Amino acid sequence: MEQDVEVMTKTVEELLRGEALEEAVELVSSIHPADQAELFWHLEPELRQSFLALLSAEGLAHLLEYLEDEQRAEVVEKMPRASLARVLDRMNNDVAADILHDLPPSERARVLSTMSTATEVTPLLEHAEESAGGIMTRGFVALHAEMAAQDAITYLRLRQPNVEEAYYLYVMDAVNRLEGVVSLRQLVVAPPHTPIREIMSRDVISVGPETDQEECARLIQRYRLRALPVVDEDRRLLGITTMDDAMAVISEEATEDMYRIVGLPAQESVFDPVTVSARRRLPWLFLNILTALAAAGMVNAFKGTIAQVAAVAVFMPMVAGLGGNAGIQTITLVVREIALGEIELRDARRVLIKEVTMGLLKGIIFGVVVGLVAWAWQVNWTLGLVVGLAMLLNMLVAGFSGAVIPLGLRWLRLDPALASGILLTAVTDVLGFFFLLGLATLFVV
Amino acid sequence: MEQDVEVMTKTVEELLRGEALEEAVELVSSIHPADQAELFWHLEPELRQSFLALLSAEGLAHLLEYLEDEQRAEVVEKMPRASLARVLDRMNNDVAADILHDLPPSERARVLSTMSTATEVTPLLEHAEESAGGIMTRGFVALHAEMAAQDAITYLRLRQPNVEEAYYLYVMDAVNRLEGVVSLRQLVVAPPHTPIREIMSRDVISVGPETDQEECARLIQRYRLRALPVVDEDRRLLGITTMDDAMAVISEEATEDMYRIVGLPAQESVFDPVTVSARRRLPWLFLNILTALAAAGMVNAFKGTIAQVAAVAVFMPMVAGLGGNAGIQTITLVVREIALGEIELRDARRVLIKEVTMGLLKGIIFGVVVGLVAWAWQVNWTLGLVVGLAMLLNMLVAGFSGAVIPLGLRWLRLDPALASGILLTAVTDVLGFFFLLGLATLFVV
Repeated sequence: MEQDVEVMTKTVEELLRGEALEEAVELVSSIHPADQAELFWHLEPELRQSFLALLSAEGLAHLLEYLEDEQRAEVVEKMPRASLARVLDRMNNDVAADILHDLPPSERARVLSTMSTATEVTPLLEHAEESAGGIMTRGFVALHAEMAAQDAITYLRLRQPNVEEAYYLYVMDAVNRLEGVVSLRQLVVAPPHTPIREIMSRDVISVGPETDQEECARLIQRYRLRALPVVDEDRRLLGITTMDDAMAVISEEATEDMYRIVGLPAQESVFDPVTVSARRRLPWLFLNILTALAAAGMVNAFKGTIAQVAAVAVFMPMVAGLGGNAGIQTITLVVREIALGEIELRDARRVLIKEVTMGLLKGIIFGVVVGLVAWAWQVNWTLGLVVGLAMLLNMLVAGFSGAVIPLGLRWLRLDPALASGILLTAVTDVLGFFFLLGLATLFVV
Repeated sequence: MEQDVEVMTKTVEELLRGEALEEAVELVSSIHPADQAELFWHLEPELRQSFLALLSAEGLAHLLEYLEDEQRAEVVEKMPRASLARVLDRMNNDVAADILHDLPPSERARVLSTMSTATEVTPLLEHAEESAGGIMTRGFVALHAEMAAQDAITYLRLRQPNVEEAYYLYVMDAVNRLEGVVSLRQLVVAPPHTPIREIMSRDVISVGPETDQEECARLIQRYRLRALPVVDEDRRLLGITTMDDAMAVISEEATEDMYRIVGLPAQESVFDPVTVSARRRLPWLFLNILTALAAAGMVNAFKGTIAQVAAVAVFMPMVAGLGGNAGIQTITLVVREIALGEIELRDARRVLIKEVTMGLLKGIIFGVVVGLVAWAWQVNWTLGLVVGLAMLLNMLVAGFSGAVIPLGLRWLRLDPALASGILLTAVTDVLGFFFLLGLATLFVV
């Protein structure tokens, strides 16, 4: 499928250059908006505006829904404000809200004032972008509990909801509070005259508009929901967040965790220009200079020892490196399990005991191995003892800080992944050198 | 919701101890299977069998669907084989196939022989567990193109598909080849006498049974599908993979990538017993001993230089550590973008140029900073020059190997994440020390 996109991109470019617009329209409208979005992005930049001109307002709306955030912003910026309103009207209103969110306030008001879906989109603008209220859509179908199944079907036929979100139908009581939920399948397979009250489920899992998007995704995944209703404090239905949102959030948050551990910004890509990447990646590497300076300072304090017993320097990378890698394993595990909801702050003690025990075990095994290596290699049994002991101590430090750093960041209400890898290697370097060089100063020199 | 689970666990434990079985049954059957699964797992181990006895075959089937793989295996192991067949009959057949997959072949045959859904489950056992054929379910609804919309609804009412997968209905031609797809919503809102041929979509995105589950998840996410049909070479529908599968795969694969970079096994958890974790984590740390030995060997070769100019040892952690962290950033980025389908092997040249350019840029900036620090601190300008130059060279190595290691693993058809962090730090350590100590030997001593 996607290899076709490459070929099609070339064809579209040729058609646009040859001004064969009718053929171009025909080709473009025959492909899926997801592929259109990829094609668009691979077009020569000077042809992009002509490509956009091929699409109807509806086509543009679909394209924008499938573009990445940054690409979308670029397209919106160049679009005349009058056509923007028409395009936003034809879009899922959660995406429309995201786009309006990123406009300057005065422009936002101007565009909204000419939109026919303004009443549906405006409430979405009130909520934080990463909250349930920010990712929800208003495209839900509400029914009343006394309706018969067949009448509900007739109602749907009249109303023609064009949203795929009609998977669940929400049932309201007399004062419009969320009372139950029925799936379209249940409605269809029920005997025609059954009142909805009898087929609906009353245990509706719902969230408030301020709930974090990660929590919404977790609930959708845990309970295998297709959609999650968002209600206000009076249980009035504000909108729904869908499984599509959840999938996007899960993927995003996993990327964020991976990137943050190593000090990368979440929006980084290898295809960004060098200048953009440099601006993003350098700050963390500068933090890394400071932590490296701390490690260097520690070594500097023991220069005398190293000058006397250079062999001790041979084991610096071993003690620090093995400790660092063991600690990074712990950090990765703890960060990921916090993200998956498998570790909560109340589990801190248990996690700490487990990881320090693991550190002790690794420390004993690696201490013996590395100590024996040092003894045999440098023919110096006190050096072997010192290296082994330093390794043992550094593994304990690695287990302890591998658990404490992400849990501590979480306790401070920061992201548990935040540059935690850089912080951890700072700790295992500084203390690793301290143990090794300190013990060497006491016993070997 | 989940805090309630903790409270309920205590209540259930008390009821079971007091043999108040009826009350226990009532309480347990009132909660969602996802919560039952969590509750079950938090029960005192000696109460677990009595808990399982509270559930009907259907209840057990739901519970098993929501348990993690390892927990599920433990429950299945203790279950009498006769009741296992009854439970598997009541389960989504993709999960039933997973369970049967893990039984010894003779037992599998015995259980299958008493299952009433054996004909549906057996074909699923033929495919690899991580392929489309392995994760698909046979619970789909097929229609014929000439049926009217209203007749299709009547047919559904008769057939009573109890699967939520009835979101899409698949349309077959005369020889049972997949011809189109129609969503339940389209069917419901269509005028009653419209033939399905007129409302169905003919562009059905489908995969073969051997397609990797990651590719299925990517297609589902890219095209925002609710389900993806799996067809054989004659386009006969074998089953469907659903958005639930895709979500699980996306989450699993992200975890796997994160863990593999640092040399952790994918199934690791902080709550596993120390002995299990040790067995899993140690092999990679042993590989790490070998790579650390290589770094130590490099330092050992320059012991003479270090003995003469101990100050040079102060900058060993800086040159190696900053290079390692920069390289890990690149690796993380490349691994993740390969996983998200944003980088293919054909992009290798572009990725390499970008990351080596970034390495050069970082090398210049950090080389100057670190070089100036070394000069000012140790009052030795040749040392400053040597440290700066070593930093520059190591940053180039970091950029190059950060891109080449995952792309190379991919080219070898291995997992691009496979212990790539450990390999990378080995390269930046060994070469970092070589540059620093080698240049110091030439110019400083």
